[in-house]
Amino acid sequence: MADKYICIDIGGTKILGAIVDEKDNIICEVKKKTKAHKGLEVVEERLLGVIEELLEKSQVPKEEIAAIGAGAPGVINKDTGEIIYSPNLPWKNYNIKKIIEGKLGIPFVVGNDANVGIMGEWKYGAAINKKNVVGIFVGTGIGGGLIVDDKLFTGANHLAGELGHMVINPEGPYCNCGQRGCLESYAGKVAMTREIKNQIKRGRESILKDLMDMESSVISSKPLKEAIEEKDALAVEVLDKAIYYLAAGTGSLINIFNPEMVVLGGGVIESLGCYIMPILKEYIKKFILPGMLEGTEIVESALGDHSIIYGALALAKEIK
Amino acid sequence: MADKYICIDIGGTKILGAIVDEKDNIICEVKKKTKAHKGLEVVEERLLGVIEELLEKSQVPKEEIAAIGAGAPGVINKDTGEIIYSPNLPWKNYNIKKIIEGKLGIPFVVGNDANVGIMGEWKYGAAINKKNVVGIFVGTGIGGGLIVDDKLFTGANHLAGELGHMVINPEGPYCNCGQRGCLESYAGKVAMTREIKNQIKRGRESILKDLMDMESSVISSKPLKEAIEEKDALAVEVLDKAIYYLAAGTGSLINIFNPEMVVLGGGVIESLGCYIMPILKEYIKKFILPGMLEGTEIVESALGDHSIIYGALALAKEIK
Repeated sequence: MADKYICIDIGGTKILGAIVDEKDNIICEVKKKTKAHKGLEVVEERLLGVIEELLEKSQVPKEEIAAIGAGAPGVINKDTGEIIYSPNLPWKNYNIKKIIEGKLGIPFVVGNDANVGIMGEWKYGAAINKKNVVGIFVGTGIGGGLIVDDKLFTGANHLAGELGHMVINPEGPYCNCGQRGCLESYAGKVAMTREIKNQIKRGRESILKDLMDMESSVISSKPLKEAIEEKDALAVEVLDKAIYYLAAGTGSLINIFNPEMVVLGGGVIESLGCYIMPILKEYIKKFILPGMLEGTEIVESALGDHSIIYGALALAKEIK
Repeated sequence: MADKYICIDIGGTKILGAIVDEKDNIICEVKKKTKAHKGLEVVEERLLGVIEELLEKSQVPKEEIAAIGAGAPGVINKDTGEIIYSPNLPWKNYNIKKIIEGKLGIPFVVGNDANVGIMGEWKYGAAINKKNVVGIFVGTGIGGGLIVDDKLFTGANHLAGELGHMVINPEGPYCNCGQRGCLESYAGKVAMTREIKNQIKRGRESILKDLMDMESSVISSKPLKEAIEEKDALAVEVLDKAIYYLAAGTGSLINIFNPEMVVLGGGVIESLGCYIMPILKEYIKKFILPGMLEGTEIVESALGDHSIIYGALALAKEIK
């Protein structure tokens, strides 16, 4: 009986796959590097490799897989399965659904990673039974997903939810997207790394000088966490500034959506959530209208790095 | 046969009422000052006065009125008819629906004015047949309304759509709401007036010195329009800055909602739309992600100062 699902988180650096059984338990996981720089065919091969390895390792016969769900970065038409454009994957106007279904004969669905992440939190995580939810995922950049009136909201062209590209200050720093002063350009890991490296170059003392890879444009969560735990003044200052701008963006979103819940997730929150969340909640008060906070819970992701896996499960169940 | 509607735009300074016939034509209009400073009972009386005068003037028998719809500023529970809080009216936790229905025996419905305004544009104006629409109304302040997946979106506590209180710069000027750097604090008429008066105080030459009431905290649209038409340098500069920030806010909303259409309305757009819109559309390009603009039309309100009247008609038809 086809009552199990394959769920895949296709990231720019790694592909994480899982088989989920009929009781929504993950019974097997496989992780592979994406090798995005090697091009379209290699990534496709590695994706198929993850699926094969999952089936092999778990000994689940292919016939028991009802559907495959996935999340990937970029602009994705969830209905057709086309990856229209992805900043971190070598896929453009690429119908991954047709390819996977053609090769495996199993129904396949894919959505934008942050959209799929908030689906996971909504169906299986922090936001169960909520009708209106804003999801903000802070990692290298900042992604977003919106549950509006009990449905994933994707807008006119599958582009809605680019919460990292709200303008927080039109005179602010340039963002990777070309705009100035996006939320992402203040509060994502790339922004924090730029600030840390600038300050160190200017002679600022910090234990991050030894802890982090000074060549990389994105600090890993581990050294950032270590520096915060050691109360390193530079790390505390940079993170505090990021939280302040994150609060401005979150406050705006609360004023716009009046959501029942805001879920914060992503790598930065996962590793530093218990440090960030109380400060964030305090700062948010500066940026919302009177009465707005009463109806809105602000919580940390409950599924951590499995939001996308569970969101992919929710998508897969929709199409099976 | 009850096939006509009374539609009311309850503003902080005036109450505009209309009777709309079975073919959606306005057959009679009445306007009265709100006299909000005179308190709850007076406003209630004046509202009832507008309704009475409409019936009298039009000679339409009360029995032919199927329902009354209205829009009013503030936080309003459309389902119960309660005005929870209004910045410009002396009503707080005030169930206007019960009062009107009790006195007249005609079904009554009221919503937030900007929400009702976008309803009007969506059902009868610029956004007919669109499923996802963002409405931005620029007047004394900035109001907003959202049509999401073919429905008016009001959020968890009837507070959604406060688009004027998106944070455009956390270090920006203080807004009436207590926040800093709201869109409204940059691009509403109060903001423009503050800027004009400051500059004139500092000795800046401008024909506005003679045209406008220098004691008032809100410039009228007429002198502003005249000064723009005369190419007064101060007026052009102040309006340009307002348009720039309005573009930043509109761009953010496009990145968030990926709407089919953005409708701009309100007093400022009504009087200066043909000047503002081309500049706004140009500036917006700075603030949106690649590809975002393709699916989104940016247009001026089609109903002008009758958006709320027609939105009230749409609301009234929903409950009749």
